[in-house]
Amino acid sequence: MAQEAAVTAGPRSGARRQFLNDPDDVVAEALEGFARAHSDLVRWNRDPSYVIRADHGAHGSKVGLVSGGGSGHEPLHTGFVGRGMLDAAVPGQVFTSPTALQVAAATQAVDTGAGVVQIVKNYTGDVLNFRIAAEIAQDEGARVQQVLVDDDLATDPQLTGNPDGPGRRGTAAVVAVEKVCGAAAEAGADVVEVAALGRRVASSARSLAVALEAPAHPGRDRPSFDLGEHEVEFGVGIHGERGVGRRPFAPAAELLPQLTAPLVESLGLRRGDAALVIVNGLGSTHPLQLSLAYREVTRLLDGLGITTARSLLGSYVTALDMTGCSVTLVRLDDDLLRLWDAPVRTAALTW
Amino acid sequence: MAQEAAVTAGPRSGARRQFLNDPDDVVAEALEGFARAHSDLVRWNRDPSYVIRADHGAHGSKVGLVSGGGSGHEPLHTGFVGRGMLDAAVPGQVFTSPTALQVAAATQAVDTGAGVVQIVKNYTGDVLNFRIAAEIAQDEGARVQQVLVDDDLATDPQLTGNPDGPGRRGTAAVVAVEKVCGAAAEAGADVVEVAALGRRVASSARSLAVALEAPAHPGRDRPSFDLGEHEVEFGVGIHGERGVGRRPFAPAAELLPQLTAPLVESLGLRRGDAALVIVNGLGSTHPLQLSLAYREVTRLLDGLGITTARSLLGSYVTALDMTGCSVTLVRLDDDLLRLWDAPVRTAALTW
Repeated sequence: MAQEAAVTAGPRSGARRQFLNDPDDVVAEALEGFARAHSDLVRWNRDPSYVIRADHGAHGSKVGLVSGGGSGHEPLHTGFVGRGMLDAAVPGQVFTSPTALQVAAATQAVDTGAGVVQIVKNYTGDVLNFRIAAEIAQDEGARVQQVLVDDDLATDPQLTGNPDGPGRRGTAAVVAVEKVCGAAAEAGADVVEVAALGRRVASSARSLAVALEAPAHPGRDRPSFDLGEHEVEFGVGIHGERGVGRRPFAPAAELLPQLTAPLVESLGLRRGDAALVIVNGLGSTHPLQLSLAYREVTRLLDGLGITTARSLLGSYVTALDMTGCSVTLVRLDDDLLRLWDAPVRTAALTW
Repeated sequence: MAQEAAVTAGPRSGARRQFLNDPDDVVAEALEGFARAHSDLVRWNRDPSYVIRADHGAHGSKVGLVSGGGSGHEPLHTGFVGRGMLDAAVPGQVFTSPTALQVAAATQAVDTGAGVVQIVKNYTGDVLNFRIAAEIAQDEGARVQQVLVDDDLATDPQLTGNPDGPGRRGTAAVVAVEKVCGAAAEAGADVVEVAALGRRVASSARSLAVALEAPAHPGRDRPSFDLGEHEVEFGVGIHGERGVGRRPFAPAAELLPQLTAPLVESLGLRRGDAALVIVNGLGSTHPLQLSLAYREVTRLLDGLGITTARSLLGSYVTALDMTGCSVTLVRLDDDLLRLWDAPVRTAALTW
């Protein structure tokens, strides 16, 4: 068995070595490790697979909050399970939606009678499976609301000229949606109010990402795309797919404005407006690089008179070991600011 | 200027693209970004360069805590500046010690009259420059104590057979030393007590690391060493240098015990003992991979009857974008456990 795994996991020419045993087991083994490391916060339900707050149900009735999606984006979503954020996260295989039965089981598990809000990133598989799961849970008597997160400006129909496509993908804005909904649920808002707040955050958020290097799937030996020596991949999502186009490699002071300025325009942000700024590493981007990128983003906003009211700097929504970053802007008002600032205690976010 | 930077920063054949402008400015620009993102916690003194708690001096007199070293290891040390941990961090250029004048300035800045503890990783340049800085500060009337962190078993003289060498390097155990000393200082311990606790943590800690891929310096176009297709670099430090030897690539269930078992032996851990377990990403290691590695480490400890009393799982002490991980074990007693559990609020560690 170990021999077989060694052969499977072993790199070939130019390959990336990874910590794994059998590639088919990477998600389950990682979830087991994650739950071991954070047993004060979460427990892992192995089958059907979901991660749930260790103290779920200990604090009476409140709106349950569930999100999920393919694995490979860690710390999303499992890292956001805990007080003030998600009640459960439902991980699929790498870059693969969780099944409707997984999502339904998690939805029912977190329902204390106050209803459940499902936070869904806009991908065809996730949308489909969460919808079926919601119907299953509703058939069993749960009140279920859904919030669709679709912040990726690179896939905006107005820009792609494809009005019949799936629309904007869901990327790093999901962290803001989960944080705000989590705070509202913790404060006793009802299921309709929590969902309305989540939709408000989603509609106030836009993101763009650039990749400097493609990721490699566990057990596969090559990056998912190749870049020329002087190119970057602009408008990438979080699944290792190509972006909307290749652009010339350039200094950070030129690259980051290419990500940030279109967000400002799309949201119609003006002098005096306040924004939450998320500069997010896509997997292999070093903190030095992210801090430097953050400097460029906020200098541009300073110049436009837009206030960086709050920020999040780190690798929160990743695409395996892709090198690059995404920039997310969320228009803030006093309500959202207060919910963003509310206490949170999860593996990836605590204050 | 931008044109010039583009040429400097541009990758050549097989190179890694990075977010940067002029490579000479990467540390300063990243520090500016870091301080912008965490203005509630820290401020950056540009010249001489150090990062200091934003609320320094606001809470009366307490032992000051300073650490530092070359950059490229972020979030270490700047990410650990804040309540319950460091008062200041002194960053050098990438993989280069800060100057004695930088360290002396930070030491004097955090001295409220209760003395200062310097936490120094065991590298020749750091040891030398912190010693000179301590003498400068002492000449100005400060009481300065030093804690040397030397946890890297790969460079243990007993194993390398070089008793006249610099001894064990300081690596991820420095996080535990900073946490415990920070909690003690916050609780009002005096400068001798804080230093003694730090030394107790350092002497109770051992680490080993393995690299799956070498890092590349900012602005350089090649990894710092090459690995064969079926090799890993065993016993690496955190400066992109080669380790103590090449070993065959193997499944995680074989690689992680190679890191963990020697630590158990070196510390003389036995059935019933309690340990802090740090599984630390070296820069580009995805959370999925780290969680999987953590599973292997703690399964081994479970089998030996050693209790994983506390753990830290994530990328805390990095070597630029090296792929790989380190494992650190710290023998815990009730005092250390209590100090580890005390509240902390920094950019990289909060509970």
